[in-house]
Amino acid sequence: MTSEFHIYNTLSRKKEIFEPLNPPFVGLYACGPTVYGDAHLGHARQAITFDVLFRTLMHLEYKVRYVRNITDVGHLVDDADDGEDKILKKARLESLEPMEVVQYYMNRYHENMASLNVLPPSIEPRASGHIIEQQELIAKIIEAGYAYEVNGSVYFDVARYNKDHSYGILSGRKVEDLISNTRSLDGQSEKRDPLDFSLWKKADPSHIMRWSSQWGEGYPGWHLECSAMSTKYLGMQFDIHGGGLDLLFPHHECEIAQNVAGYGKPSVKYWMHNNMITINGKKMGRSLGNFITLDQFFSGEHEMLEGRYSAMTIRFFILQAHYRSTLDFSNEALRASQKGLEKLLKAMALLDTIKPLENSSISVKSLHNKCEEALRDDMNTPILIAHLFDGVKIIRALSEAKESITASDLDLLKSLYRTMVYDVLGISPSNAPEAENNLTGDLVEMILQLRKDAKANKDYNTADQIRNRLTQLGLNLKDHKEGTDWEIN
Amino acid sequence: MTSEFHIYNTLSRKKEIFEPLNPPFVGLYACGPTVYGDAHLGHARQAITFDVLFRTLMHLEYKVRYVRNITDVGHLVDDADDGEDKILKKARLESLEPMEVVQYYMNRYHENMASLNVLPPSIEPRASGHIIEQQELIAKIIEAGYAYEVNGSVYFDVARYNKDHSYGILSGRKVEDLISNTRSLDGQSEKRDPLDFSLWKKADPSHIMRWSSQWGEGYPGWHLECSAMSTKYLGMQFDIHGGGLDLLFPHHECEIAQNVAGYGKPSVKYWMHNNMITINGKKMGRSLGNFITLDQFFSGEHEMLEGRYSAMTIRFFILQAHYRSTLDFSNEALRASQKGLEKLLKAMALLDTIKPLENSSISVKSLHNKCEEALRDDMNTPILIAHLFDGVKIIRALSEAKESITASDLDLLKSLYRTMVYDVLGISPSNAPEAENNLTGDLVEMILQLRKDAKANKDYNTADQIRNRLTQLGLNLKDHKEGTDWEIN
Repeated sequence: MTSEFHIYNTLSRKKEIFEPLNPPFVGLYACGPTVYGDAHLGHARQAITFDVLFRTLMHLEYKVRYVRNITDVGHLVDDADDGEDKILKKARLESLEPMEVVQYYMNRYHENMASLNVLPPSIEPRASGHIIEQQELIAKIIEAGYAYEVNGSVYFDVARYNKDHSYGILSGRKVEDLISNTRSLDGQSEKRDPLDFSLWKKADPSHIMRWSSQWGEGYPGWHLECSAMSTKYLGMQFDIHGGGLDLLFPHHECEIAQNVAGYGKPSVKYWMHNNMITINGKKMGRSLGNFITLDQFFSGEHEMLEGRYSAMTIRFFILQAHYRSTLDFSNEALRASQKGLEKLLKAMALLDTIKPLENSSISVKSLHNKCEEALRDDMNTPILIAHLFDGVKIIRALSEAKESITASDLDLLKSLYRTMVYDVLGISPSNAPEAENNLTGDLVEMILQLRKDAKANKDYNTADQIRNRLTQLGLNLKDHKEGTDWEIN
Repeated sequence: MTSEFHIYNTLSRKKEIFEPLNPPFVGLYACGPTVYGDAHLGHARQAITFDVLFRTLMHLEYKVRYVRNITDVGHLVDDADDGEDKILKKARLESLEPMEVVQYYMNRYHENMASLNVLPPSIEPRASGHIIEQQELIAKIIEAGYAYEVNGSVYFDVARYNKDHSYGILSGRKVEDLISNTRSLDGQSEKRDPLDFSLWKKADPSHIMRWSSQWGEGYPGWHLECSAMSTKYLGMQFDIHGGGLDLLFPHHECEIAQNVAGYGKPSVKYWMHNNMITINGKKMGRSLGNFITLDQFFSGEHEMLEGRYSAMTIRFFILQAHYRSTLDFSNEALRASQKGLEKLLKAMALLDTIKPLENSSISVKSLHNKCEEALRDDMNTPILIAHLFDGVKIIRALSEAKESITASDLDLLKSLYRTMVYDVLGISPSNAPEAENNLTGDLVEMILQLRKDAKANKDYNTADQIRNRLTQLGLNLKDHKEGTDWEIN
């Protein structure tokens, strides 16, 4: 077993040993949501991926400052930079103050994240709360000669930057290819070149979200906030920047260019990207209109859903794929994840019933090492979960006294499952599909005992009544030799 | 019954009829927490007071935009303005980035508010997110001649302002009296007069929270944020500004002065202030060190607490006093509130068991009108609750068939209790002390039926076993003629 943590760095296109700049401290930045609509499965995947990274780094005993932003202004509709501000568009439709829309969806996002047991980041900065910092960065970029002002707006000069540095270093794209793929500008555009992107946009008179600046009233371009806020809270250089693969280009590419142009050097050592959720093979996304929101998953209210899925089922489903693979939505796959999670949690409950013996016939250490190895191999959660399922067989064999375990090995085994399932994978048993509070479980067990007693007394009438009433209350009973299993529908 | 809503306006020192500036819209601003420590009972009272106002306004069918701020910078330790920034002080102690401290306590505040069933405001702006707006207001005040810059800091000139306007209009204090009560300045101070207060403070080199400005790097004075943010989201004039009585002077007095000096007119039509929580007759407060945090109330872990109290008990306790009266903490009073709330909710559960008859022997309309009247009389929640308790007697009499009610009256009665208890007072039955989810209740009822059957069959052994096991599980049973009452310890 290796004690090194390997992560895939998009920048080098290979797995690297993770070596933080200032151990034991780790600076982690991940792109958060644009709060103009409800979060869907794709948002859950991104949040859960970097939540598990946050948890893994803490498990590896690093002291992590995790910054995840809220984009509440400046995200333009399309990359042409001439589109309406997405948030403003929604606000106009609903006749609301934009910040009221932002607050509404931000609150809902936080509720969704809490349901998914995604830990709150150490700092959650909002773009609208860091206008001065963004203006300062723009001024630095202009001063360095990599941006120009036109009529109250400021644009990043990609061609000029690319002469001195490398635009495309992250995405592997070449400026020449990008240019030939871009339609030519019409006469109206202020940009010198179609590849240029906005750092500051002049606000037209109807634009509500606006701030004063040395270039006049306006608002920052979308790419800018992450450069300004990551630097403010994590320093000029920090360890890891994460985000969805859809953000790699142009968002993260532009972020690197902004940092190099404004601060003289790139800030990020490791870039990590999670892959997309697909639905019938196509990317799930707001702009594509083919998304299912998290609330719809939880309530089951969407034509493509064959039932409701608990937040922990969603989380487990996401973790059963490696974060760099695409993950295709299907009801079958979700039901399989639900069953898998129930199986895992039931096995964990069995752990408390196992009686230790003099010798261990199984190797806990080996299981432990395999789990750690999978985790440290670029967070290979599907392999980690496969090992945990191998362990389920061992736990069952121990519970049926087909294998034996010593008291200290049993402690290790319990600790391994608690650590991996609860702390690292972030499964919260209280949010899990079959879990209810302990009192309910105790009451059901008590009733099942009364039914057993009734049967023993040949009072089959009472025993049947009990079964019928429990069924009415939504409990499924399954009798077998050792007793009765039950679950809540 | 009057349909008018009367509220006490601190500005006029009397109850006034509430007449919004732009009906049906209402703009409401309330001072939120300074997030450098856990919320205590005093914070709960302020939040619940204006939550009930928010709910009452919606009940009266107004369209309310409710803004409650987060003070995450600029709150100086004492009014001498020379103290350390409170948040910065805490950050240094813990060796954390100030925004990390802010995020931590803000998250905890939100959790506390959710437990107390305090609705999220429509917009929750943060002081650190509105530096530009504050700088713009400072510039206006300087331009109007009511502020001066000294060595990178800007102070409000109270004497100059008081010549043209009235400093003390809200608090009833006179500038002459204030001056005679203030110790003279030492030679070090930059202020022209001890009454002057800071609008912008120069950041010394060790100060982490700092922003660039036309006066150099610094941070805004505490009073400024509410003027800037209320105006931004509610307009130059809006309906109601709320806060704790401890904020009346100097905070709200300074806020008025800033608005008049910068925008030429006061912004607030109605000022509302909730009174303090006392503990052995003294104000409960962070700075006094005699506070009990909400988490301590929920867990019972504080030497002055004789047990844990649910969030709904705390809420009900607060609402059983009028918001303008002081409220003294005691375990006795909290236990009484808990019992009162349980009684109320049990009576509400009884409503579903009442069978309607041909005639009503009681007047639901009269009860309804009394409740509405109490609410519209400056939110007199203790009187409202007293009427609801009178109704509990009626509900019991109906349930025992000692009184009669028609189907339509019964609907009115149910609607009255749901509206007043859930919607207006904001009691959430699922957070209430005795409430558990329905399944648990159904299971207990099922077990009690089995016990009754056992008794009927003279199987006293089983009946006793059931009682013992339920007691073990933490349930209190109380047998009486009609059946068995139970509650969870």
